[in-house]
Amino acid sequence: MRREPLKGRGDYKVWRDIGTRWSDNDAYGHVNNTIYYQWFDTAVNTWLIERGLLDVAAGDPIGLVVETGCRYARPLSYPDPVELGLAVQKIGSSSVTYLLSVFAKGSGEAAAEGHFVHVYVDRQSRKPVPIPGEWRRALESIRLA
Amino acid sequence: MRREPLKGRGDYKVWRDIGTRWSDNDAYGHVNNTIYYQWFDTAVNTWLIERGLLDVAAGDPIGLVVETGCRYARPLSYPDPVELGLAVQKIGSSSVTYLLSVFAKGSGEAAAEGHFVHVYVDRQSRKPVPIPGEWRRALESIRLA
Amino acid sequence: MRREPLKGRGDYKVWRDIGTRWSDNDAYGHVNNTIYYQWFDTAVNTWLIERGLLDVAAGDPIGLVVETGCRYARPLSYPDPVELGLAVQKIGSSSVTYLLSVFAKGSGEAAAEGHFVHVYVDRQSRKPVPIPGEWRRALESIRLA
Amino acid sequence: MRREPLKGRGDYKVWRDIGTRWSDNDAYGHVNNTIYYQWFDTAVNTWLIERGLLDVAAGDPIGLVVETGCRYARPLSYPDPVELGLAVQKIGSSSVTYLLSVFAKGSGEAAAEGHFVHVYVDRQSRKPVPIPGEWRRALESIRLA
Repeated sequence: MRREPLKGRGDYKVWRDIGTRWSDNDAYGHVNNTIYYQWFDTAVNTWLIERGLLDVAAGDPIGLVVETGCRYARPLSYPDPVELGLAVQKIGSSSVTYLLSVFAKGSGEAAAEGHFVHVYVDRQSRKPVPIPGEWRRALESIRLA
Repeated sequence: MRREPLKGRGDYKVWRDIGTRWSDNDAYGHVNNTIYYQWFDTAVNTWLIERGLLDVAAGDPIGLVVETGCRYARPLSYPDPVELGLAVQKIGSSSVTYLLSVFAKGSGEAAAEGHFVHVYVDRQSRKPVPIPGEWRRALESIRLA
Repeated sequence: MRREPLKGRGDYKVWRDIGTRWSDNDAYGHVNNTIYYQWFDTAVNTWLIERGLLDVAAGDPIGLVVETGCRYARPLSYPDPVELGLAVQKIGSSSVTYLLSVFAKGSGEAAAEGHFVHVYVDRQSRKPVPIPGEWRRALESIRLA
Repeated sequence: MRREPLKGRGDYKVWRDIGTRWSDNDAYGHVNNTIYYQWFDTAVNTWLIERGLLDVAAGDPIGLVVETGCRYARPLSYPDPVELGLAVQKIGSSSVTYLLSVFAKGSGEAAAEGHFVHVYVDRQSRKPVPIPGEWRRALESIRLA
């Protein structure tokens, strides 16, 4: 299996530190593949919240996940902390594709790289809505380098 | 976003019932996107175990996850049970690509479709090994219809 | 550490089968201690839902967890399925203490025993409310034998 | 239900910051009760690892969880970070009871308080062993104030 090489640190402007948990490691002693997606969810939503865009409890629109994917290159293990790079790869009328890379804290080589596609929908109807201008400007500012 | 249509029930020969858990639902009241990957992990490994191929505690080889992905088409919610269809899409020298679809129990329309790539490695060295003949024959028998 | 013996199968009238997941096993190869609480949450809420009492999305009251605890006696491991016995130990004006035991499927000896205390609250105000009569009758019917 | 008041910040000498994750919130919009136990597991094991006592992959002894419990006093929600206070409440010949309190970052009032009982066992036989002297001295140093 030949695969496209993973992105490097220089491709990301937004970074987030995430602590690992005991239960992240599975029976083979490494962070389970499903946990990376918990980190992606957390990195994207936290960025949206900190920018004042997303309000989980009462705001509008909200983001629903319609597609995710991840390639795993090297194992990670609790208790080692990780860093996530986050960038926007594509902005559609209602959807955004985020790219995320996971690095062992301080490492120059990505351990995994994933994408995460949000569709922004009306909280009540759950129908797609055009991405608001304020969201669009913020998203443009973290385009993949 | 136009997307390739999801596979239907007829594409799968192997089926697995999975119960949902209270904690599967997230703040938006639906099963969180990360949980589908717990189901994929479970469906693939359980099939390997039931076929007498994989022994999680002591067997050789073991399967490491190198790539996963999922497209989500309709929401699922605890307490409703789900069914997973499992098939083999591609068999390489050391790696296998599985295809999995999630259906609400009894539904004709897939709620999500994912792929899951295992590389089979030596338990100690964690280096890829050729897929044993017995594994290969079992994997061939559940090729995507 | 001497400890009170765990309850036996005869103490329970309500039973629930639960499947284990790959990710339930932790780095020591057994179901992680936190997963049992996912099962407790699931067993209690599913029973309330099936009895037509709890409606997670829109009903009133809802149950908030104010106390939980568990004693672990023997390990469990994915892929083995488990069975939970569920009973009501104490009914207060707004709170209910449930007792739950986990058994490896078919085993006569409990692997773990826990308690789970729900306070029933108004969905909006989140203030405790008296347990409705219909709930109380259902709860009385599954008193610990 | 009258309950013993929760411990305060002054009772703890060891503190740990923990980030919350999107998936920690459940359908009612607050951190699910099971997640607190992931934090307890993490706080206890990370302290043991940082003190050079526990080696998850290869060390001896290892700690198995035989009892846990938690009382929940106020809700917590992603994305807010939390702080855990950790102390040793009781040291037996092979077992240790840890006390843990969870605070919203900066809050003076505990959101939850739990206990966590480890039995230290031989990695291979999984039989209880006397707590080594070096462990005992470290554990004594974080006795509940």
